[in-house]
Amino acid sequence: MNHFLTKQRAILKVYLINLIDKKKMYGMQYLQLIREAFKEYGYIPKHSEIYKALHELTRDGIVYRTKKLRSEDKDGFQEIIIYQFTEEGYKKAQLYKKQVKADLERSRDILSKVMKDNY
Amino acid sequence: MNHFLTKQRAILKVYLINLIDKKKMYGMQYLQLIREAFKEYGYIPKHSEIYKALHELTRDGIVYRTKKLRSEDKDGFQEIIIYQFTEEGYKKAQLYKKQVKADLERSRDILSKVMKDNY
Repeated sequence: MNHFLTKQRAILKVYLINLIDKKKMYGMQYLQLIREAFKEYGYIPKHSEIYKALHELTRDGIVYRTKKLRSEDKDGFQEIIIYQFTEEGYKKAQLYKKQVKADLERSRDILSKVMKDNY
Repeated sequence: MNHFLTKQRAILKVYLINLIDKKKMYGMQYLQLIREAFKEYGYIPKHSEIYKALHELTRDGIVYRTKKLRSEDKDGFQEIIIYQFTEEGYKKAQLYKKQVKADLERSRDILSKVMKDNY
């Protein structure tokens, strides 16, 4: 391992794991909720970033995608994509969260160190 | 502005500004001292990263380079590069440090938020 502060991708994956854990929502809702979380910090995660994070969770066998048809008011049906944990996924997700937690703590320590050394 | 946590480059520039401020050292010493600072955090800044940061400080008129000859024990002389603040550089450097400080605080707040939201 030789990276600096925790990567955006890892943090987005942790948010997604918790959102998928909470209820069956679909992709666009994740984007809105995560953007809302960071609104006051001047950081607007890109659509493509969220989808890359979802793609990695799928590729790593943590979640799987299902397509559903949702009825719309007048326009008929809209296809939406729902993410759920695979059988082994929930356990893998908790392990991943634990690893990211350690990295977040390391990042917090780095920031404290930088402040102490330079200001 | 739409970035996530404070960039490695910005933090390296702050360290370099303070090292240049402390005494007239040369490039290879900066590398050693900054690596030492981050040793226990599992982060080893690359040689090329330090030089890119020094290049930006030079390009932005904050520091200038001078070449000096240093006497070596037996091999004659070695050319070393020394960095010093330009006339306007010191003031610019302090302003830059102030901006990075605000960004470090923002990053610290983001990390706290991520911990609070997910753990």
